[in-house]
Amino acid sequence: MAAALTLAQIASRLGGRIVGNPEILIRQVASLQGAGPGQISFLARSAFKSQLAGTRASAVVLGAEAESLTTLPRIVCDNPYAYIARVSQLFNPPFTQPAGVHASAVLAPGVKLGARVSIGPGCVIGEEVSIGDDCCLYPRVVVYAGCRIGARAIIHAGAVIGADGFGIAPDDGRWVKIPQTGRVVIGDDVEIGANTTIDRGAMDDTVIGDGVKLDNQIQIGHNCRIGAHTAMAGCSGVAGSTSVGSRCMIGAGARILGHLSLCDGALVSAGTVISRSIRKPGVYTGLFPAGEHRSWTRNAAVVRHLAGLVKRVRALENPLKREEETDG
Amino acid sequence: MAAALTLAQIASRLGGRIVGNPEILIRQVASLQGAGPGQISFLARSAFKSQLAGTRASAVVLGAEAESLTTLPRIVCDNPYAYIARVSQLFNPPFTQPAGVHASAVLAPGVKLGARVSIGPGCVIGEEVSIGDDCCLYPRVVVYAGCRIGARAIIHAGAVIGADGFGIAPDDGRWVKIPQTGRVVIGDDVEIGANTTIDRGAMDDTVIGDGVKLDNQIQIGHNCRIGAHTAMAGCSGVAGSTSVGSRCMIGAGARILGHLSLCDGALVSAGTVISRSIRKPGVYTGLFPAGEHRSWTRNAAVVRHLAGLVKRVRALENPLKREEETDG
Amino acid sequence: MAAALTLAQIASRLGGRIVGNPEILIRQVASLQGAGPGQISFLARSAFKSQLAGTRASAVVLGAEAESLTTLPRIVCDNPYAYIARVSQLFNPPFTQPAGVHASAVLAPGVKLGARVSIGPGCVIGEEVSIGDDCCLYPRVVVYAGCRIGARAIIHAGAVIGADGFGIAPDDGRWVKIPQTGRVVIGDDVEIGANTTIDRGAMDDTVIGDGVKLDNQIQIGHNCRIGAHTAMAGCSGVAGSTSVGSRCMIGAGARILGHLSLCDGALVSAGTVISRSIRKPGVYTGLFPAGEHRSWTRNAAVVRHLAGLVKRVRALENPLKREEETDG
Repeated sequence: MAAALTLAQIASRLGGRIVGNPEILIRQVASLQGAGPGQISFLARSAFKSQLAGTRASAVVLGAEAESLTTLPRIVCDNPYAYIARVSQLFNPPFTQPAGVHASAVLAPGVKLGARVSIGPGCVIGEEVSIGDDCCLYPRVVVYAGCRIGARAIIHAGAVIGADGFGIAPDDGRWVKIPQTGRVVIGDDVEIGANTTIDRGAMDDTVIGDGVKLDNQIQIGHNCRIGAHTAMAGCSGVAGSTSVGSRCMIGAGARILGHLSLCDGALVSAGTVISRSIRKPGVYTGLFPAGEHRSWTRNAAVVRHLAGLVKRVRALENPLKREEETDG
Repeated sequence: MAAALTLAQIASRLGGRIVGNPEILIRQVASLQGAGPGQISFLARSAFKSQLAGTRASAVVLGAEAESLTTLPRIVCDNPYAYIARVSQLFNPPFTQPAGVHASAVLAPGVKLGARVSIGPGCVIGEEVSIGDDCCLYPRVVVYAGCRIGARAIIHAGAVIGADGFGIAPDDGRWVKIPQTGRVVIGDDVEIGANTTIDRGAMDDTVIGDGVKLDNQIQIGHNCRIGAHTAMAGCSGVAGSTSVGSRCMIGAGARILGHLSLCDGALVSAGTVISRSIRKPGVYTGLFPAGEHRSWTRNAAVVRHLAGLVKRVRALENPLKREEETDG
Repeated sequence: MAAALTLAQIASRLGGRIVGNPEILIRQVASLQGAGPGQISFLARSAFKSQLAGTRASAVVLGAEAESLTTLPRIVCDNPYAYIARVSQLFNPPFTQPAGVHASAVLAPGVKLGARVSIGPGCVIGEEVSIGDDCCLYPRVVVYAGCRIGARAIIHAGAVIGADGFGIAPDDGRWVKIPQTGRVVIGDDVEIGANTTIDRGAMDDTVIGDGVKLDNQIQIGHNCRIGAHTAMAGCSGVAGSTSVGSRCMIGAGARILGHLSLCDGALVSAGTVISRSIRKPGVYTGLFPAGEHRSWTRNAAVVRHLAGLVKRVRALENPLKREEETDG
């Protein structure tokens, strides 16, 4: 991690083309509005163009199409958002907790820890859990017995990995618990948000692929499989036995119901519930734009009579058939 | 808990009819696909029939209608899913944490623990809490002062029982906190999922009935009553002062709004929001199947004009009345 | 905190007009149904009128319009709900945890605590965090490094303040982590519910205004700003970079998507998803009332063909134009 780098030093490590003074010294990244001297900012979306004029940043990262919008020293590159992420990684560590196992953490017998692992205060790691190199578990993460976590995982506070899946069998008006004997198996380079929960499999395993990024308060049910490099935003969830493909994006608050399959590259809009399998990549949406309460409820009430409305329109289209119509 | 049992020994304990070699030795349950020698699997839904042919299980549990689909040693019974659950309970404990109070748990004065209770690392139990026999609290469960938990509860990591309900009174543009003086009272045989929260009552108690099963990340508001043997799937929630009947099933991500009453046997589909009381058992749904983004948004936009569309259809049906129509 | 007060003593502190015996001794507040001798109850909504007749309370708080509905000793006031909240505060403390830092809490170097702060068992407070006077952090709250919390905060068990926001940049089919270098800055008189998560800013801060009340399991994304005295009910959430105004009310399970702006006084109904900015105070709704499954699905299926239905109605209205119609 560097304390300061010149623009030239940054570009020599990360690529890009410098326009303006390459000797400008950079110590941190910042937003266009929040930046001050010694900081580098970025323009990722043209929506923020107006902020470019007023920024006090010492330099900016932007795309070729925006190159002429400023006279500040700048790095021109193909993907300014990914570029600034990498610049930030030069100045900031991936996690801020020191390596080692905090004295208040509780490790059961048989836990295997990789090199340079950081286990925060109050973490509880169950029997025979294995955790790969360079992982960081922030405070109060719980990993139940038998689960496996790959290298470079970052797991935020309060996450629970490997609690029992919701396995209950109805029997004569009561529920019989099905012991959950599977594990959670997590690949490399996975990040898991605060208070997210990933259930262990019922009999087989729950599997999280390499490079998966899960935001806060996500629920992954038992026996799910989340494909590599899929990203899920906060408060989304996947119910049991569903398989989500690789490089999917699941929006905030979206829910995927159980026993479904989503193909690689499925993009689910925020607030959408997916109740059928998706077999074709693309964007899927199930959200109505909310409106002012009075007009909304007037329109929403019609939904309860839509099938009838269709019938009325059909009758108007075919007046002679009107009398033959039956329910449905 | 048994290390191994013959098919005959299993059937003598749990009933069912054996077809094939009763002396086959079983050591564990497994899914049809994951099973190997010494393991017993099951066919609960005909959807999995195709997996039956290829299984390497030593025996299977199935219904009479599927009896002839395999030549493996098998147990024929009425409810294969509940049966395999009970078989699994012969080989696996209901919870995997040793009895006793972990040294890192914090118990306030006046806590009463039943026999054989297991309190995991980092649990915090408030003053005057009582916990029944054979309960297991996994790591980092918090139970606030005064709450009561019946026998055989299983409470998963990160659950919070008895935090203050959301009681605030508006007063001149600010909020006045209403101290929450009720408790949470939980019956026998209840399971509570990871990071689920159950709020204490405002003045009266929040009550969870016998045999209730709550999955992960569920929120139960203050003064709710959840009837016996009701099951709620992950990320569902019940807002304050709502009463849910017995033997209800609430789907994943479903929400029941506040101050409502759901009768016994109400079944709420996943992703559904219930905004009115339910007085008749049955399945209730409020979910639209999502679609491809472009066609969805085109259709969704119409929803904002549905009341107008109804009026237009009415005008077509009664052309002479068209001019009399007024808004609404 | 008082053990007992006469009605006259209560009214002398909090105002209101006494009708009946002012010397009645009160020791606690209770609901109309749950109250007994020595307890004072209240009538906040006329919906509970029927409970007034049968109450065993020693006194009640009510509005002038309900004054004549009972002969019990009573306090007549403008806002009975806020009044009873204040009465309750006379008999019950705002939080039930003793002041001081519990021995099992972990405080990093540089933490600054105000006067009379209560830090519960298992809390973890990161480097350079500052916490104002009279705060209560219930068990197992985690505050990441650098965050600031004002005076009189009440933070319930399992809440996580300052975990990394969900900052990832797509790059060639993988995700690059954007280090989250902002903080969470929380004003005075804020209450935060159990297992709620508030993410630190990406580069700038996430800001929670004075008097904000957050219920359980709420998610606040990075760089959000929540205006003063806004209240959010359980399981609601605000995605990244959204600004919510002052004195807004967000219903249970509602979600505000990212990069939006909600004006002061926006009221969002429970279960509603807001996908566009709100510029005018008022109630906004996006929820359909659920129905019986069979009729619901029949009607819901029509939604996928609504745009077509509009076209058919248009064709009926303008038969001559029918042939000119094109898609959209």
